[in-house]
Amino acid sequence: MTDPVTLARETFPSESAPRAPLASWLGQTNEVTRLFLSAGQIPGLINLAGGLPDPSVWPVEELADLAASVIRETPAQALAYSPIEGLADLRDEIARRFSTGGLRLDRGNVLITTGGMQALELLGKVLLDPVQPARRATIAAQSPAYLGALDAWRPRHPDYRPMRLDRADCDMRAAMEGAQFAYVVPNFSNPTGRLVPEAQRHALVAAATASGCWLVEDDPYGALYYDGARLPRLLELAAGPGPYDGPGIYLGTVSKELAPGLRIGWVIAAPEMIQALTLAKQGSDMSTSGLCQMIYLRALQQGLTERVLPGILSLYADRRDALLDAMGRHLSDLFTWERPKGGMFVWASARDPRLDTDRLLALALEHGTCVTPSSVFDPEGLDRRAIRVNFTLNAPPELDEGVRRLARAARAALAQEEAA
Amino acid sequence: MTDPVTLARETFPSESAPRAPLASWLGQTNEVTRLFLSAGQIPGLINLAGGLPDPSVWPVEELADLAASVIRETPAQALAYSPIEGLADLRDEIARRFSTGGLRLDRGNVLITTGGMQALELLGKVLLDPVQPARRATIAAQSPAYLGALDAWRPRHPDYRPMRLDRADCDMRAAMEGAQFAYVVPNFSNPTGRLVPEAQRHALVAAATASGCWLVEDDPYGALYYDGARLPRLLELAAGPGPYDGPGIYLGTVSKELAPGLRIGWVIAAPEMIQALTLAKQGSDMSTSGLCQMIYLRALQQGLTERVLPGILSLYADRRDALLDAMGRHLSDLFTWERPKGGMFVWASARDPRLDTDRLLALALEHGTCVTPSSVFDPEGLDRRAIRVNFTLNAPPELDEGVRRLARAARAALAQEEAA
Repeated sequence: MTDPVTLARETFPSESAPRAPLASWLGQTNEVTRLFLSAGQIPGLINLAGGLPDPSVWPVEELADLAASVIRETPAQALAYSPIEGLADLRDEIARRFSTGGLRLDRGNVLITTGGMQALELLGKVLLDPVQPARRATIAAQSPAYLGALDAWRPRHPDYRPMRLDRADCDMRAAMEGAQFAYVVPNFSNPTGRLVPEAQRHALVAAATASGCWLVEDDPYGALYYDGARLPRLLELAAGPGPYDGPGIYLGTVSKELAPGLRIGWVIAAPEMIQALTLAKQGSDMSTSGLCQMIYLRALQQGLTERVLPGILSLYADRRDALLDAMGRHLSDLFTWERPKGGMFVWASARDPRLDTDRLLALALEHGTCVTPSSVFDPEGLDRRAIRVNFTLNAPPELDEGVRRLARAARAALAQEEAA
Repeated sequence: MTDPVTLARETFPSESAPRAPLASWLGQTNEVTRLFLSAGQIPGLINLAGGLPDPSVWPVEELADLAASVIRETPAQALAYSPIEGLADLRDEIARRFSTGGLRLDRGNVLITTGGMQALELLGKVLLDPVQPARRATIAAQSPAYLGALDAWRPRHPDYRPMRLDRADCDMRAAMEGAQFAYVVPNFSNPTGRLVPEAQRHALVAAATASGCWLVEDDPYGALYYDGARLPRLLELAAGPGPYDGPGIYLGTVSKELAPGLRIGWVIAAPEMIQALTLAKQGSDMSTSGLCQMIYLRALQQGLTERVLPGILSLYADRRDALLDAMGRHLSDLFTWERPKGGMFVWASARDPRLDTDRLLALALEHGTCVTPSSVFDPEGLDRRAIRVNFTLNAPPELDEGVRRLARAARAALAQEEAA
């Protein structure tokens, strides 16, 4: 046998070809994302852009004790590879908690995911097949739509049919006809904070059933109702008389209720869909951390999530009110908005059509604050009329100061526009 | 505004369309996978099929203490969303540990992943773009190839060019020409247990450089050398004089060295590749658990991995020897094999070409044991001449009994063949 090294050196002495190219979707990130990435470097910045929880709500001591005890007491669950679909006990517990009189769930309806984001990715893998040239994958998406969902699906180049659920003339049935799935955040939508009313929830389920469209209900904020009673989940409305087998696909996450660092999410769906998503997860990350699953299971069993929730609700409701007060003081001549009944965000639309909110972000960073511009929630990147403002991360004085800086930046942007 | 519920009920009273179809790749799982899934139900089964660690090697007490202390002492790292690319301190630590005289790494060369599997998925996302109709994505893969890698890339329908590195006539340069990347497990390959010799490592790097092909070095067993000294990584051989910017992409995991339940892996590559993979990870699971990252960081800083390793090596080397002894006693007339110098597996080829190892698996399950048949390591599913036998999970008496059962199953399979 020839020495391969000698062979290699002789055949291509100092040859070096250009590197194989990277996927085309990588070129589709925008200026705004780059601006955000640089924002972390700015000292004193008041961040009103993200969707981050306040670290003070995390039950640090309890979680530390739980982590140590699940490793000591159940090392086979905490330290081994988990089953792909998640630990059976955790799937049972979630099935039990989400079952209602009209909704019969068991573990075959539940998949554990690595955070809520992974569920979006897996849905793309299962429902947006890239090699069906005859049929481009189509999504009927509540508009504006969650940025992370657009990120998850961008590599698969879907077509979007926007559903403006806030408009009386929104034709859900037309949007869903022939689409692979519909995507909705019914509770305090990201980005608009809007609560989809109960009648519209029924209509969404009816349209999905009639069109054969799967109906994805992304619900990270479902526990964060500050006013009023919880509305029924689409999943409940999509249930038939027997064990659950409906078109509704429910996505939950522990990030908003307990702590994002656990990276635990779940999908509740028809068994056929759970099996498909399980195959997709096998090739994506094999399984979710057993340690994190066990911590969450014990937290549920011991009622930790229920004990923590009232503190979260009271803190965030106060901050929502503080943000709205600050906006009323500093921004009412520049923007209009509605009072959200829950969630993490206020959505504000510019009164003056010349105010481009992408450019506002650049100026806001110079003024020491940042918000999220509407373009990132538009698959086409064209909507530059609104901003998403977060109220969960900052205390009232910072919220007030951030909004004050934002108002200054908006006035500067309009002055530039007038000078141009 | 019309009541949407009434509208829905009137427009499509009991209409229900067929559900939108699932992706075509979901139909491509095989009989063998289904057999494995049923194997867990069999009482008394001796599992020689998986690639699982022995739970006795996990440092349970130390990990329990570490988990509690990182949550108490660094809640902002353990419980918050991590940066997409991973915690800076962990990336620094890995860069430092993998740097050598000739290999200069910093955190810009490192991405933390959710287990080693996620790195394979992200590479597919970045390098196997589904919408380039003019150029089907091609992988030059060491053959036979790791099942999990085939799972990760199956939804993207790549073409494979097999590299039989065990054959003198293997033309690596031809396999890599025009391919997007080459995929190799140089240390104790899964499934064959083979160690790629040093000269061939140089040749792989030369061929990748000359062809412009990225060179993926999957190294889950790199710490599991039982005999002989560690050979240089492809990554080291691919390094130029400056900060690392070569074609080599190294994949590591904590699953074999500490515990799989942490789901921590990492990629070391050129900064351009790390940036692309980071964008891919953003849309896949946002970030890896901060809790698990912090546990691994502390374990590295406190030397826990180094303290645990000698016990793992001694246990697994003894079990390799016990398996080889048992195979020598019960299987030498049926199979041939080589003695692996590390890793988790022995690869055995049937002496009789009529022995179909897919059918052997079905019979082995009836006899109370299971191994992995070669078909699952072949992208075409055609190779039915060999089996992969694991030695890390079972103690010597179970290894002996499992091999005894396997021999009985193989004789039964051959008897059926002769009777047919």
